[in-house]
Amino acid sequence: MTGVDVNIPEPIQDVAHLGHVELFTPKPDESLAFFINVLGMCETDRAGQSVFLRGAGDYERHTLKLTENAEAGIGHMAWRMVSPQALQRRAEVLEANGCGRGWIEGDLGHGPAYQFVDPDGHRMELYYEAERFQPTEAQRSRLKNQPQRYSHVGAGIRRLDHVNLLCNDVTSNRVFMQDLLGFKLREHVVLDDGTEAGAWISVTPLVHDVAYTLDATRTRGRLHHVAFWTDNREDVLRAADVLLENDVPIETGPSKHALTQAFFLYGFEPGGNRFEIFSGGYLIFAPDWQPVVWTQAERAKGQAWGLKIPESFHTYGTPVVTVDREQMREMPVVERTASHTPS
Amino acid sequence: MTGVDVNIPEPIQDVAHLGHVELFTPKPDESLAFFINVLGMCETDRAGQSVFLRGAGDYERHTLKLTENAEAGIGHMAWRMVSPQALQRRAEVLEANGCGRGWIEGDLGHGPAYQFVDPDGHRMELYYEAERFQPTEAQRSRLKNQPQRYSHVGAGIRRLDHVNLLCNDVTSNRVFMQDLLGFKLREHVVLDDGTEAGAWISVTPLVHDVAYTLDATRTRGRLHHVAFWTDNREDVLRAADVLLENDVPIETGPSKHALTQAFFLYGFEPGGNRFEIFSGGYLIFAPDWQPVVWTQAERAKGQAWGLKIPESFHTYGTPVVTVDREQMREMPVVERTASHTPS
Amino acid sequence: MTGVDVNIPEPIQDVAHLGHVELFTPKPDESLAFFINVLGMCETDRAGQSVFLRGAGDYERHTLKLTENAEAGIGHMAWRMVSPQALQRRAEVLEANGCGRGWIEGDLGHGPAYQFVDPDGHRMELYYEAERFQPTEAQRSRLKNQPQRYSHVGAGIRRLDHVNLLCNDVTSNRVFMQDLLGFKLREHVVLDDGTEAGAWISVTPLVHDVAYTLDATRTRGRLHHVAFWTDNREDVLRAADVLLENDVPIETGPSKHALTQAFFLYGFEPGGNRFEIFSGGYLIFAPDWQPVVWTQAERAKGQAWGLKIPESFHTYGTPVVTVDREQMREMPVVERTASHTPS
Amino acid sequence: MTGVDVNIPEPIQDVAHLGHVELFTPKPDESLAFFINVLGMCETDRAGQSVFLRGAGDYERHTLKLTENAEAGIGHMAWRMVSPQALQRRAEVLEANGCGRGWIEGDLGHGPAYQFVDPDGHRMELYYEAERFQPTEAQRSRLKNQPQRYSHVGAGIRRLDHVNLLCNDVTSNRVFMQDLLGFKLREHVVLDDGTEAGAWISVTPLVHDVAYTLDATRTRGRLHHVAFWTDNREDVLRAADVLLENDVPIETGPSKHALTQAFFLYGFEPGGNRFEIFSGGYLIFAPDWQPVVWTQAERAKGQAWGLKIPESFHTYGTPVVTVDREQMREMPVVERTASHTPS
Repeated sequence: MTGVDVNIPEPIQDVAHLGHVELFTPKPDESLAFFINVLGMCETDRAGQSVFLRGAGDYERHTLKLTENAEAGIGHMAWRMVSPQALQRRAEVLEANGCGRGWIEGDLGHGPAYQFVDPDGHRMELYYEAERFQPTEAQRSRLKNQPQRYSHVGAGIRRLDHVNLLCNDVTSNRVFMQDLLGFKLREHVVLDDGTEAGAWISVTPLVHDVAYTLDATRTRGRLHHVAFWTDNREDVLRAADVLLENDVPIETGPSKHALTQAFFLYGFEPGGNRFEIFSGGYLIFAPDWQPVVWTQAERAKGQAWGLKIPESFHTYGTPVVTVDREQMREMPVVERTASHTPS
Repeated sequence: MTGVDVNIPEPIQDVAHLGHVELFTPKPDESLAFFINVLGMCETDRAGQSVFLRGAGDYERHTLKLTENAEAGIGHMAWRMVSPQALQRRAEVLEANGCGRGWIEGDLGHGPAYQFVDPDGHRMELYYEAERFQPTEAQRSRLKNQPQRYSHVGAGIRRLDHVNLLCNDVTSNRVFMQDLLGFKLREHVVLDDGTEAGAWISVTPLVHDVAYTLDATRTRGRLHHVAFWTDNREDVLRAADVLLENDVPIETGPSKHALTQAFFLYGFEPGGNRFEIFSGGYLIFAPDWQPVVWTQAERAKGQAWGLKIPESFHTYGTPVVTVDREQMREMPVVERTASHTPS
Repeated sequence: MTGVDVNIPEPIQDVAHLGHVELFTPKPDESLAFFINVLGMCETDRAGQSVFLRGAGDYERHTLKLTENAEAGIGHMAWRMVSPQALQRRAEVLEANGCGRGWIEGDLGHGPAYQFVDPDGHRMELYYEAERFQPTEAQRSRLKNQPQRYSHVGAGIRRLDHVNLLCNDVTSNRVFMQDLLGFKLREHVVLDDGTEAGAWISVTPLVHDVAYTLDATRTRGRLHHVAFWTDNREDVLRAADVLLENDVPIETGPSKHALTQAFFLYGFEPGGNRFEIFSGGYLIFAPDWQPVVWTQAERAKGQAWGLKIPESFHTYGTPVVTVDREQMREMPVVERTASHTPS
Repeated sequence: MTGVDVNIPEPIQDVAHLGHVELFTPKPDESLAFFINVLGMCETDRAGQSVFLRGAGDYERHTLKLTENAEAGIGHMAWRMVSPQALQRRAEVLEANGCGRGWIEGDLGHGPAYQFVDPDGHRMELYYEAERFQPTEAQRSRLKNQPQRYSHVGAGIRRLDHVNLLCNDVTSNRVFMQDLLGFKLREHVVLDDGTEAGAWISVTPLVHDVAYTLDATRTRGRLHHVAFWTDNREDVLRAADVLLENDVPIETGPSKHALTQAFFLYGFEPGGNRFEIFSGGYLIFAPDWQPVVWTQAERAKGQAWGLKIPESFHTYGTPVVTVDREQMREMPVVERTASHTPS
């Protein structure tokens, strides 16, 4: 517990969903070309050093803000609230907690937002007022319940899904999000020494709207990856070919995670940020969900089908930092290379 | 509006999800064999004239109660609430509304339930206390976040998804579910004369937890279909082969609905009830979702890819009733057979 | 039998595969835009009134020749032979048979070709010398065994697959192809009165490289459809969305044929020619394959999962002809609209 | 060239396809249960220490002979010929070449067979007369062109596809199959020192009916794996879950090979033999196919999407042999662990 009296009766869901993410990139042109031509997103606006983008299935005006910056990383992530009251309520909680940074008038596509930082230093904001995307006639889908005509360009991702944040202490960040914003713990990894190595939390039935995982370099405020949804696993397989043919570095996958059961594919956009293209997983409807606890031994077995993820997955993040190997946190969850032959 | 003062401040979600469905069947042995061998469900219990079943992805002890009965149809459907308080609150609302039937002690797998009927006469109940499924060692999945080892038998459905109820008046039933239980209207069909021909409503981000559609025979309390989820569209295609090889009548599909964008396959279980195997669709995260309205002309275009659904889809339900064609409601939403040649 | 002594000892396969197809279109610009933007083919050359195209998986320089013409239809189809000797041998057989039209020097992408017509009047040619496609650096795939970088544009068809020809008499055309060119009968429909309503024949393990089906209008030399392959069924489903969003008329599908087990999707390109996007089916390796015979009753059951194909499928072809309904051939294979309710 | 005058004019295809494979297993009961319950094959016969099995899409009476033996490995593999003449012709060629072992009367399901060994010592046979599988009424498919009702049990493999043989010298075995039996080289790996590390050859349009790869242990006559086909990639993904839930060791995959473009999944059956479940790939129709040559550097990049296959893939085979690491052949094709971070 954070020690703050939240005083909000259960089970109110105040945070509706992940609204948008701001990514920093030192290579804005290459990054923009990547998100449009390879991931299949659509540019909607430009302002200052930023370009705004969206997936065809996103209902808001944009979900990705790509901002030129000396270093890669996450600028901020924004949570849409269920109502103005929910926004006010949670802003007060954050303010009282001392982690608030105050109100901004808004940004392209959304109204007033309350800014704050999580214990690890990642910048976040809450907002309610949002512009619904208005397609041009050429962008209008033949299906009325689809916000925009599906692009079928490149990987053709459908929508923004979640963010994975690196942090120095999983538990404090996870509890912060639970206590102050009403997130629920869905799955986590607890090492033999009691350290929480990763936590997957959500306000929606998705297994995670955001995840916190340990940063081996002991740096603060870094991004592990931002994830985009495709409608099925075949689209993820297809995306792997798209990445291959476009010389986009694939880190690992496609394969199936044990945690979350998601079907994943990880790569790096030109600016250096890791992205995930994923599908599958499962939905959580139980109001009394019991978090799934994975032990160090279970985690060491690798992914669902035994794949061992490369070490970079446990050490690389943005901004990129250079750390001597001796100074790095020991990551006991790195998968062992098991014998692959029959016993 | 129903005229009842619900007096529950927005936006509380009190109903968590569809919990279970009771199906009546005049051919209990054949129906049971179907749900186990063809749909791939698992029997968990028997009591009286009922057998209890579940999908491998359902977290509760069971989600389908199959009860011997002279006629096919739906016995009742049950909604799990988010908390004891939510259960109490909504029971009081229903009681005050005059549609309540009172409390029962519970049933196999769940605790006290409050019973009621919707305006069309379908029996429903609310409950909170529920048994989580406890797999035997042989049933335990190698994935800790999976309630039960996936059967891979027959169509291998993953979980119960939704119910489509036939009714004499869509609007009154839809508004009842919205006002008294907090459902949200997601999509609906409004004919040229203003009649609401179908409404898809939910408490979860699924496009529908339950749908109401007009009963051409003007009968009350009938079932259109109960739907089961598979993880992807390939599973639905595979299920079509499973139905074919098992001589299970396929009514229509696999194809894609325009409404809900679901990838569907409809057939009839041996007792006569229509079932759906489906996947796809989309999730609704917007707290201020604007219902999608489909006109008579739009509806007449058929399904997403132009498929014309057979007339039986608009007339058949369970219990089966015999009605003179002249006495039947005119169903202007029946898809026109369009010219299929280039203009 | 044709009465011609072919005198080629079994089991020599002289025809290697379907090489290319020439399509006539009265709307050359719209047709070209369709094949490039919607089907995802690539333009390679232009000459006279023709544009040459290819799929990313086709190994020859082109596989589709799109030629401006007053009427839609098939210009010619060309078979690549296994060797110069095979070409010579079969040219002589055709010459002796009296259906030959003589040699041409070649065309863009291939060498000398021997032209002939089948009994129904469809123009065909045989050739051996062929240019292998040489990708530009930008077109080169990252996979050495892939002729061209996969486009991922629109439906992204992989390669030309087969042609379905309408004809006035299936048997004479089918036997012609068997006796003179070594095709093998794989599946056919034989009506109660002994009429052969359709025949699927091939030289490769594909179930059909070409099919002959009865022309209800009793016209000669018409095209039913030209078919393009995608790597899996998900690609066909995805293609249906691509057609929908591009206002390309879908005639029927996606669904599964009983004959050939192919997963199909039929539509009309802007010039009026019917095309198929398909995947699945099965391969025939048996040297002594026994043709599958489908009766009139079996055919009337519809496609594999019971889908009834629209009547246009049995009457429309290119060039389009206007025939009084009374003058049309009775098509007893048109699927009956069965009762879709449980018996 | 082998130095033998084959004297068969091109381009006669005498070998039709891979007919069946005999696998040795020291754990016959466990192996049998695996092939039936996990792979979804069907038992057809028993004789002596052998059980005969088939996939639902195999047209012959059986395609897998499982024989109890002290050690795992391949008993023999059998090629069906296109005609009695082809059988006689090739038997004579083999006899003249000195590698023949003579005729046997036949075995369950097929007639007279000519036995021989390849240069590495793998036992093979040629036959023509074969029994077509006759389904019982319960086994009969609702699709007439499907040999047997599809089981939908476990991974539900469709048919036997190919075999990968370990050998001490790839070139001599590959040339033997080309010169004496008419196989065609499709793809191969040639190391910097000129050593051929692997060759994929076929008589059908499949990229390989059999592959030869270097045995790191310098042993003779061993099996790398036997492969079974599923209809699509989703089936391979599904099979991975089936293996996981049945505690069948997964060696690597599912992922996509660069060579052959096959979508693969490798595991070990209880007897110790490696098996592959695969789909995808491409078909070769060109009569003048130019073999694809992969260099050592290209091979070191890993699979199509960068996956590094475990070392066991390059060292393990059946029968299992124990070899000091120093005595093992250096395998320069083992994939390097590349940096996975952006440059």
